[in-house]
Amino acid sequence: MMKLMKLTHSSKRKKEIYLDYSASSPMDKRVLEAMKPYFSLDFGNPGSIHSFGQRAQAGVDRARTIVAEGLGAKFNEIIFTGSASESNNLAIRGAVRKSGFRKPRIIVSAIDHESVVETAMDLESQGVDVVYIGVDKEGFVNPEEIANNLNDETVLVSIISASNVIGTIEPIKEIAEIVKRFRGDSEYPLFHTDAVQAFQYLDCKVDHLGVDMMTISGQKIYGPKGIGVLYIRDLERSGYKKILPIITGGGQEYGLRSGTENVPVIVGLGKAIELILKNKAKEARRIGSLRDYFWEKLKSSLPELELNGPPLDVYRLPNNLNIYFPEAGDIQELVIKMDLSGVAVSSGSACSIKSSKDSYVVAALGHKKSRSNSSIRISLGRPVTKVQVDQAIKRIIISLK
Amino acid sequence: MMKLMKLTHSSKRKKEIYLDYSASSPMDKRVLEAMKPYFSLDFGNPGSIHSFGQRAQAGVDRARTIVAEGLGAKFNEIIFTGSASESNNLAIRGAVRKSGFRKPRIIVSAIDHESVVETAMDLESQGVDVVYIGVDKEGFVNPEEIANNLNDETVLVSIISASNVIGTIEPIKEIAEIVKRFRGDSEYPLFHTDAVQAFQYLDCKVDHLGVDMMTISGQKIYGPKGIGVLYIRDLERSGYKKILPIITGGGQEYGLRSGTENVPVIVGLGKAIELILKNKAKEARRIGSLRDYFWEKLKSSLPELELNGPPLDVYRLPNNLNIYFPEAGDIQELVIKMDLSGVAVSSGSACSIKSSKDSYVVAALGHKKSRSNSSIRISLGRPVTKVQVDQAIKRIIISLK
Repeated sequence: MMKLMKLTHSSKRKKEIYLDYSASSPMDKRVLEAMKPYFSLDFGNPGSIHSFGQRAQAGVDRARTIVAEGLGAKFNEIIFTGSASESNNLAIRGAVRKSGFRKPRIIVSAIDHESVVETAMDLESQGVDVVYIGVDKEGFVNPEEIANNLNDETVLVSIISASNVIGTIEPIKEIAEIVKRFRGDSEYPLFHTDAVQAFQYLDCKVDHLGVDMMTISGQKIYGPKGIGVLYIRDLERSGYKKILPIITGGGQEYGLRSGTENVPVIVGLGKAIELILKNKAKEARRIGSLRDYFWEKLKSSLPELELNGPPLDVYRLPNNLNIYFPEAGDIQELVIKMDLSGVAVSSGSACSIKSSKDSYVVAALGHKKSRSNSSIRISLGRPVTKVQVDQAIKRIIISLK
Repeated sequence: MMKLMKLTHSSKRKKEIYLDYSASSPMDKRVLEAMKPYFSLDFGNPGSIHSFGQRAQAGVDRARTIVAEGLGAKFNEIIFTGSASESNNLAIRGAVRKSGFRKPRIIVSAIDHESVVETAMDLESQGVDVVYIGVDKEGFVNPEEIANNLNDETVLVSIISASNVIGTIEPIKEIAEIVKRFRGDSEYPLFHTDAVQAFQYLDCKVDHLGVDMMTISGQKIYGPKGIGVLYIRDLERSGYKKILPIITGGGQEYGLRSGTENVPVIVGLGKAIELILKNKAKEARRIGSLRDYFWEKLKSSLPELELNGPPLDVYRLPNNLNIYFPEAGDIQELVIKMDLSGVAVSSGSACSIKSSKDSYVVAALGHKKSRSNSSIRISLGRPVTKVQVDQAIKRIIISLK
């Protein structure tokens, strides 16, 4: 009886089509295999000097090596945190506090992730001078606008590499150039980017982009939840650190993130990155074609639909669609209808607590209000096939009836 | 060949005796089983409204219910964080910032965990008035001394429930009474305790202890690494919150800890707590007897050894020994020798990055300096048997030669 129930349950699940990979991705089985020894066998605290601790430390070291290579960074420029949100907070709060400026300025984009925008707002309430850079109709930041807002008190510029909502790929290299030119020989401003969504499809080597700090995440790249990375360029130059910690204590992670290293998920992140690196360009092309096919076919059935964000070309994440359903009415209701028909999609970002508020990202594009409240994000991922896309389109059409 | 190597490897490991359970514990296999569905099947983001998100949210909800029951708390008084260090930082930094006092005072014990003491020191450098309460020869805080240091600007008292280094069980109930009496109808001071080591052996029900905030951890109780809890009494009374977050963004965990919920480890923590609760008193008695036997037998072979901390009775954690080896010389060397002989023990706390510094906790007991640099912590755990204890004693004696 139990067995039968289980089978029914899992076959029901097989039918569900998940198209919300930008919210969270299933962990690759190979990642779990890599993690397993560190749960109950090599379970030591990496801070312990005995062999249990040493084996745990070796796992962390190997993962740090892989992550560093994946970002084109040095081993000791990689900080493991508990989430990308924590990494973003650490970059921003840590830089502001380290500067010691009386009225530090930070510059962020209006379409950055909540953990950047809300953190900026929180700091603003504490007296930090925050400049929010708007975007054009397609979600692009204008580097000129950043240049115009830099001043001597600017501690940090933080711009998302690619939007988690509308897929816009921002001109990170150009912004990095502007920040570097302005900075000259001084310490500030620093340039940070949230590359959580970009990393798995784009070249995010830190020297290619020219950034000083970069955030990536495990859960969006088929790795574990509960792990973020903050890359910090030249973290340990003669003992000087560019930022201060937000969590203090035992001094782990070069003093920038205290707390026992979460060994299994750190090892898992290493494995996930190893798997991404093997196949990045090819998978980006595959996903891009599938996504283009998805849109063309859907649009031919439902010509009233419109795309939010940039056109489907090189400046848009290859897995992202963000679609305005003009006749949808309440978008939450539509998402639930689609879910009941077996397609999991998203209204805006899942990173905000279940709120029925419309996406501030779509709203920032300057459309009329009703548009941001009638738009859906579809994000493809590694397991998605053409057969699934065809089926998903059928189900979406049914949901609209 | 590979198979043979594996066997040799694992049989070698079987011989190692781990006696450092206060640093980290192996995850119970049943915990991993509970976590497994949430890696690759119910992998959704709990913030998503579709069924993948709902199943993940249901896992988090169930775990929150178990944790709340385990602490005798309400569902919405439990905050999941990334580590006990983060919980301690959140309690302390969050309360200080929320108070808005010009010169807030916080009171901590000198033998609290690094994540309390270092955080207090960091806040002190920012202008917070910190009182460090010393301890007597056995590691006990004097509640009178806390009473004498309370003033109208005191925001928080934070005292560890039981020392991670010397096992001293502090008079938490008495301190709670003092704080409550002083507070009367006003909001401050709050009383927080780090119960990371105490929870698995003692009654840590929040009403029994009378605390306002409490920290617990997964990795010390055969649960996962990367998960901490902060209990906050009456967290959501008419929208008022007692503390402010240190990580902002999507507003998860009642707005106090942004970032996607780490579903698998949250579920795993729930399971670990369920297992602890089944057997708490009985296991405390078993471990206590084994620990007493350990000490008596070791001392009869090595009469020069002395115990640090309180006597082996009800005011000492039942799994803890902290032993002064007067003729040991360099303690790190001795720990490594013991490790080579197959016994994993600790000098001080593992929660500090591999430093050869002596334990500030043992040093706080007022012994001569050389004593804190010649002491070893032995902490027993669930898998430890009498046979292992006998063997460990033999190995310790060999290591001293």
